[in-house]
Amino acid sequence: MTLPRQRVTLITLGVADLARARAFYEAWGWQIHPGSQTGVAFYQMNGAVLALFGLGDLAEDQGRPDAVLGTGAMTLAQNCADDAETDAVFDAALVAGATLLKRPEKVFWGGYSGYFSDPDGHVWEIATNPFWPLGEDGSLTLPAG
Amino acid sequence: MTLPRQRVTLITLGVADLARARAFYEAWGWQIHPGSQTGVAFYQMNGAVLALFGLGDLAEDQGRPDAVLGTGAMTLAQNCADDAETDAVFDAALVAGATLLKRPEKVFWGGYSGYFSDPDGHVWEIATNPFWPLGEDGSLTLPAG
Repeated sequence: MTLPRQRVTLITLGVADLARARAFYEAWGWQIHPGSQTGVAFYQMNGAVLALFGLGDLAEDQGRPDAVLGTGAMTLAQNCADDAETDAVFDAALVAGATLLKRPEKVFWGGYSGYFSDPDGHVWEIATNPFWPLGEDGSLTLPAG
Repeated sequence: MTLPRQRVTLITLGVADLARARAFYEAWGWQIHPGSQTGVAFYQMNGAVLALFGLGDLAEDQGRPDAVLGTGAMTLAQNCADDAETDAVFDAALVAGATLLKRPEKVFWGGYSGYFSDPDGHVWEIATNPFWPLGEDGSLTLPAG
């Protein structure tokens, strides 16, 4: 089996307080996978998995136990079917306790986009991009360039 | 169309030097999408897209132009079919100029995993997880818990 070269199968978010992080994602509407274990929470996504894992454990796992791990330079985006879904997903995150960075608005590239950060500072963009239609499974395949 | 609630469609890496970052990903074997534009590079993945975008532009886009964006607290993982593929993918990244954090080794959870960082400090884990079989398209669906 030759797998596609370009893939991300797991995104791990380092968190200061796993219970707090789990509570946020649950309140935002995410369902934890039953295969989650003490110390790590898994969420099935579109062909990939999101994990929540202790920040110190993550630094240790990365082989740099004393590192200060930073956030913000990597952004996760959830593209939505339309502006109404973008607003609904965004508002649900704020209700769940997200920190508002930028409310969804029309942006220069022709879409509609907002940003928030989760309790550990991880940045999410919730957006509508009329040039990037989504698959029914929520996947994104770029149109021919 | 009701999309699955739990999804990431776009992962954006903030980079200090787009040409340097593009060169690294190209050297690591990634092919840029022809729809990429000046100032942003797109790479098609398994149902989602990886983007490279200027760090300052990203901070501005996030609505916090003066923020110092950090790395490391969010890790991207590429799960591989077997340890040989993990080694090959990992070594290719080092040859392309990645910074070694931890060479792939047998780990406590029963897999085989290593870490490197890209030229902007973004952390990648390359791993084999015998408990998580991959789809032929490189996607990851968690086994029933």
